[in-house]
Amino acid sequence: MPLEVAGASTSIEIRYALDTFYLLMTGILVMFMAAGFAMLEAGLVRAKNTAEILTKNITLYAVACIMYMLVGYNLMYPGENTIIAGILPHFTFLLGGEQTAESILAGTASKAYALKADFFFQVVFVATSMSVVSGAVAERMKLWAFLVFAVVMTGFIYPIQGYWKWGGGWLEAIPFLSNASFKDFAGSGIVHLCGATAALAGVLLLGARKGKYGANGQVNPMPGANLPLATLGTMILWFGWFGFNGGSQLKLSTIADANTVAAVIVNTNMAACGGLVAAILVARILFGKADLSMILNGILAGLVAITAEPSTPTASFAVMIGAVGGVLVVFSIVTLDKMRVDDPVGAISVHGIAGVWGLLAVPITNTSAKFSAQFIGVLSIFGWVFVTSLIVWSILKFTIGIRMSEEEEYEGADISECGLEAYPEFMHK
Amino acid sequence: MPLEVAGASTSIEIRYALDTFYLLMTGILVMFMAAGFAMLEAGLVRAKNTAEILTKNITLYAVACIMYMLVGYNLMYPGENTIIAGILPHFTFLLGGEQTAESILAGTASKAYALKADFFFQVVFVATSMSVVSGAVAERMKLWAFLVFAVVMTGFIYPIQGYWKWGGGWLEAIPFLSNASFKDFAGSGIVHLCGATAALAGVLLLGARKGKYGANGQVNPMPGANLPLATLGTMILWFGWFGFNGGSQLKLSTIADANTVAAVIVNTNMAACGGLVAAILVARILFGKADLSMILNGILAGLVAITAEPSTPTASFAVMIGAVGGVLVVFSIVTLDKMRVDDPVGAISVHGIAGVWGLLAVPITNTSAKFSAQFIGVLSIFGWVFVTSLIVWSILKFTIGIRMSEEEEYEGADISECGLEAYPEFMHK
Amino acid sequence: MPLEVAGASTSIEIRYALDTFYLLMTGILVMFMAAGFAMLEAGLVRAKNTAEILTKNITLYAVACIMYMLVGYNLMYPGENTIIAGILPHFTFLLGGEQTAESILAGTASKAYALKADFFFQVVFVATSMSVVSGAVAERMKLWAFLVFAVVMTGFIYPIQGYWKWGGGWLEAIPFLSNASFKDFAGSGIVHLCGATAALAGVLLLGARKGKYGANGQVNPMPGANLPLATLGTMILWFGWFGFNGGSQLKLSTIADANTVAAVIVNTNMAACGGLVAAILVARILFGKADLSMILNGILAGLVAITAEPSTPTASFAVMIGAVGGVLVVFSIVTLDKMRVDDPVGAISVHGIAGVWGLLAVPITNTSAKFSAQFIGVLSIFGWVFVTSLIVWSILKFTIGIRMSEEEEYEGADISECGLEAYPEFMHK
Repeated sequence: MPLEVAGASTSIEIRYALDTFYLLMTGILVMFMAAGFAMLEAGLVRAKNTAEILTKNITLYAVACIMYMLVGYNLMYPGENTIIAGILPHFTFLLGGEQTAESILAGTASKAYALKADFFFQVVFVATSMSVVSGAVAERMKLWAFLVFAVVMTGFIYPIQGYWKWGGGWLEAIPFLSNASFKDFAGSGIVHLCGATAALAGVLLLGARKGKYGANGQVNPMPGANLPLATLGTMILWFGWFGFNGGSQLKLSTIADANTVAAVIVNTNMAACGGLVAAILVARILFGKADLSMILNGILAGLVAITAEPSTPTASFAVMIGAVGGVLVVFSIVTLDKMRVDDPVGAISVHGIAGVWGLLAVPITNTSAKFSAQFIGVLSIFGWVFVTSLIVWSILKFTIGIRMSEEEEYEGADISECGLEAYPEFMHK
Repeated sequence: MPLEVAGASTSIEIRYALDTFYLLMTGILVMFMAAGFAMLEAGLVRAKNTAEILTKNITLYAVACIMYMLVGYNLMYPGENTIIAGILPHFTFLLGGEQTAESILAGTASKAYALKADFFFQVVFVATSMSVVSGAVAERMKLWAFLVFAVVMTGFIYPIQGYWKWGGGWLEAIPFLSNASFKDFAGSGIVHLCGATAALAGVLLLGARKGKYGANGQVNPMPGANLPLATLGTMILWFGWFGFNGGSQLKLSTIADANTVAAVIVNTNMAACGGLVAAILVARILFGKADLSMILNGILAGLVAITAEPSTPTASFAVMIGAVGGVLVVFSIVTLDKMRVDDPVGAISVHGIAGVWGLLAVPITNTSAKFSAQFIGVLSIFGWVFVTSLIVWSILKFTIGIRMSEEEEYEGADISECGLEAYPEFMHK
Repeated sequence: MPLEVAGASTSIEIRYALDTFYLLMTGILVMFMAAGFAMLEAGLVRAKNTAEILTKNITLYAVACIMYMLVGYNLMYPGENTIIAGILPHFTFLLGGEQTAESILAGTASKAYALKADFFFQVVFVATSMSVVSGAVAERMKLWAFLVFAVVMTGFIYPIQGYWKWGGGWLEAIPFLSNASFKDFAGSGIVHLCGATAALAGVLLLGARKGKYGANGQVNPMPGANLPLATLGTMILWFGWFGFNGGSQLKLSTIADANTVAAVIVNTNMAACGGLVAAILVARILFGKADLSMILNGILAGLVAITAEPSTPTASFAVMIGAVGGVLVVFSIVTLDKMRVDDPVGAISVHGIAGVWGLLAVPITNTSAKFSAQFIGVLSIFGWVFVTSLIVWSILKFTIGIRMSEEEEYEGADISECGLEAYPEFMHK
C-alpha cells in the first residue's frame, strides 16, 4: 500500500517536474525573442537611430517584466477571484508563494507545474507585445515618452484584455453568443494584434518621419542600415516562436499533450515557410526583385497568422495559412504607405493584419471555434487597446511630448537620446 | 490490478512525452543552424553580395521544409513499405496522422515519440544539407536557379540517399558485404558530404568568381565583409550542433540512452575544440598569423568530423578526431584554390573533406563498423549526389542559366537580384 | 514483486534521464554565452581590434574545454578522494567512464544523472570565467600570451578555488568558523569574481591603451565600433544565464527542485531587469543621456549579482539585488577610469564589483548564510586568484611579453595578430 502511494506520487512528481521544465525552456526561447525584435528593428532603421532603438527594445523588456510582476500578472490571472464573464479583474500586487508539495500530491494545487514557471512564461509574452510597438514608432518618438507608455501598456492595457480570454473573463465565454468562446491559442490577438493596435494609435498621433512622403504623393525609401542584422533578428524570432506557440499548450506530460505540442511546432515552422515563399513570389511579381525586407516580413506574418491556432491544421494547411499572411503583409505595407501611415519596420501590417487573418481563420480547422466569436474578439481587442492607447499617447503628447524636435530627428536619435553612435567608425560624416 | 496497469501506462506516457520533448528541443536547436549558416555566409562574402546570400539561405530553408513535407520525408522513411536493401523507395505525398494513444500504450505504435516530432527533427536536417551548397556557389550564382536546384535536392536527391541508410535501404545492410552496415550516426555523409558534393558539382559548372584567379596562377584574396557576423554564425552552428548530434540518438528516456546523449554532446564539443586548436596552430605555422576565417573553418571541420560517430570515442579521442579535421580543412582550402575550384566560404572542404574523414574514422572507435562499409558509403553518397546534381545543374545552365552576367557580378548580386543593399550607409561609393 | 521492482527502477530511470537532459540543455545555454561574450567584446572595441578579440574569445573557449578535460575537472571535483577542508586537491588526468545502469538502479552511483552531463555543465563555466578576462585586456594584449595564460587559468587557477567550495574543500566548511559554509549558488565568486580578479592582475601589469588617459587627467573616450553587436552579445548572455543559474540546482526531477529551478529563473530575469533600469536612470542623472553601453553593463551587473543566490529572494527582492548591482557598476566604471585602470568593456566592474555585492547580499535572504563566511570567501578567492595570476602574467611579461608594440597597437591587433581585417569594406582609410 505505501509503495503504491509512493508510485502514484512519484509519477505526479515527475510530471510536475517535466511540465515545469517544459514551460521554463519554452519561456527561455520566448525571452530570446526580445533579442530578435531588437536586432530586427536595429537592422531596419537608419544607422543614426540604431542605438536608440536598441535602448528602447531592451528597456521595454525590463519595464514589461517589472510592471507585470507588480500588477499585470495579478490583473490578468486573478485566480480564485475570477468572475466569469468579467470585464474588470481584481487588483492585487506582487507575486505570491509557490504551491506546497502536499497540495500538489493531494491534487488540490491550482496548477500541475511551478507557479513561478507559469509567471515566467506569461511575462515574456507581455514583452513580446510591447516589442511590436517600438518598431512602428521608430526614428522619431522620444525615448522617455515611449518608456512611460510601456509602463501603462504592460501594467494595465495588455493584462486587462489578456484577462478577458486567458484569465477567464468574458471572451472565454461570450454572454450574448450562448457562451461561445473566442479562440486564440498563443496570442495572434492578445499579444500581436494588441501590440499592433497600440502602435497604430501611436503612429497616428506621431506622424510620419520627415521626408518620408513627398508633396506629390511619392514614398521615399529610407532603407534599413543593416540587413544581416534584420535577418538575424527574424531568424531569432522564428527560433523563439517555437517556444511561444510550443509552450502555449502549457502541458506536455501526456501522450495527447505531447502529440499536440509536436503538431504545434511543425505547424509553426510550416506557416513561416509559407509566409516566406508567398512574400518572395509576390515581391518578385510586384517589384521584379526578391526584396529581402519583404521576405522577412512574410516570415513574421506567417508566424503571427498561425499563432491563433497552430494545433488543429495539417502541416500543409499551415503552409497555406502562413502564405495568406505573407501575401497580405506585402499589400498591407504598400497600402499603409499610400495612406501615409509611416511604420518603418512594417510592424502594424505584420502583427495587426496577419494577426486578424489568423484569428478569423481559426474556425476553418478548429470545429469548436465560431466565426462570430472570433470577430467579436478582434473588435474588442482592437477597440480596447486603440482607445486606451490613444488616450495615453495623447496625454503624453500634450505633457512631455512624444516627438523629437526636427533637429534631433535630422541629427539622429542616437546622439540626442543616448549620447553616442551605434557605428562610430563606419559612417560618412 | 487496474492500478498496476495504470502505473505501467503512466511510465509509457511520461517516456513518450519526455522523448518527444527531447526531439523537439534538439530539433529547435538544429533549426537555429539555419541562422548560423546565413550569418556565416553573409559574413564571408563581400558586402555587395550580402543581402542575396541571406535571401538564398532563408529561402532554401523554406523550400527544404515544404519539399520534404510534400515528398522527401516519405521517400526517405517509407515505413512499413521498406524494402531492405532497396535502392529506390516508395513514393507518397504529405504527412499522415499522429499515432493513437491506444496504439502507444499497447506497444503497437511504430515510434515511442510523436511522429510530428520525428518529422520536425528530420526536416531541419534537410535544410542543413542544402545550406552547405549556398556558400560554395556564392557571389555569382543566380538566385532563382539556385532555388530551383533546392527544390530537386531537398525533395529527391537528399531523401533517396538518406533512405539508403536511415530509411532502411541498402546501406543499412550492404548485400555484397555480408550485410555489414554503413555507420553514420548524425550525418557526416548523409547530410554534410551530400551537401558538399552537390556544391562541388555546381561550382565546377559555374566557374570561379571574376578576378579570383590571376593569369599567372596567383590567388587574389576576396575577404569577407563582416567577420563578427561570420564568427557569430559559426558559434550559432556550434550551439545548434548539440541538437544535431545530441538529438540523433532519437531517444533519451533510459539510463543507457541518457548516458549516450551526454557522451555525444561532450564529444561534439570537444571535437569542435580540437578542430579550432589545430586550425589556429596550422594557420600560425603556414601563414604566420592566427587567421580567423581558418579558425572558424577548423571549428566546423571538427564538428563535421565527429558527426559520423560521436557516441563511442572518449572525450580526448574526440579532440583528436576534430583536430585531424581542422588540419585537413586548412590544407584542403589551400589546395582547392590551387586547383582553381572557387569556394568562397570553404564549404566543400569543411563539409566534404572533413565529412569523409569522419566517416572513415568511425571504425577506430566503433567496433561494429567496418572500413569497407564506410568506404562504400562514401563512394555511393558521393557518386549519387554528384551525378544527379551535375545533371540538374546542367539542365539549369542550359535553360534558365546559373551564372549572373558579368555586369551583375561586378555591381553585386544585392542590387541585381534583391533590388536593395545590405549596408546602404557603410559603403564607399 | 518483479513488477514492483520494475516500477521503482522505471522511475529511477526516468528521473535519471530527465535530470541528465536538464543538465545538458542548461549546459548548452551556458555554452552559448561564449558567443555572447564574443559579440559583446567585439562590439565594444574599436574596429581595428575586432577580429583579434573574436579570435581570443573563441580560442579561449577551446583551451578551457581541453585543459579542464585534461586536469581541471579532476582537480576541482576529486570525488571520493575529497578531503574536507582541503586546500590542495588530488591531481589526476582525463575523464573516467560512465556510471553503470546497475549502480544507478541500486542507488550506489555517485550521481543521479550522467557523469558526462555533469562534466559538460561544469566545463562551460570555466570558459565563462576565462571570457571575463579577454574583455579587460582588449586592444593591447598579445594574442599568444593571452592564450598561454588561459591554459594556466582554466587548468589550475580556476579549478583549485572551485574545489574549495564546489568540490568539497575548505570553503564548504570553514574550519575556523565552526564549519560555516561559504554560499555561492552559481558562481558570483567562483566564476565571475575569479575572472575579474585575473583580469585586474593582467590590466595592472599591462597598462592602459595608448591615448586613453591624457596628461591632465582627462579620460578620452574610445567608443566601441558596433553597438548592435554589443547589445546582441548582452542579450545572448542574458539568455544563456538562464542555463547558468537555472542549471546550478543540478537536479529538477522532484517538486521541490522544480519549484526552486523556476524561482531561480524568475529571479535571474528580474535581477537583470533591475540592473538595467537602475543603470539607465543613473546614466540619465549622471550624464544626461540614456547611455546604451552603461545599460548593457547594468544588465550584466544585475545578472552577476543574483548569481550568488537566486533561489531564496522573492522576485521583487531580486529586482533590488540587480538594481544595486546596476548602480554600483556605473560608479565603478567611472572610478576605475579615474584611477587609470583601463578596462575597455567594463569587465572588472561588472564581474568583480557586482560579484562581490552578490556574495555579500546572500545572508539577507538565505538564513543559513553567514556574512563572515561570505567575506572570507570573497577574500580567499580574490587573494588566490590575484596572487597566482600576477605571478603568471609577470612570468609572461618577462619572457614572451604581454603587450603589443606601439606600432601594432596603432595599426590594430587585427592586422598584426590575425593578418586580416574584421570589416575590410567599411573602414575609412
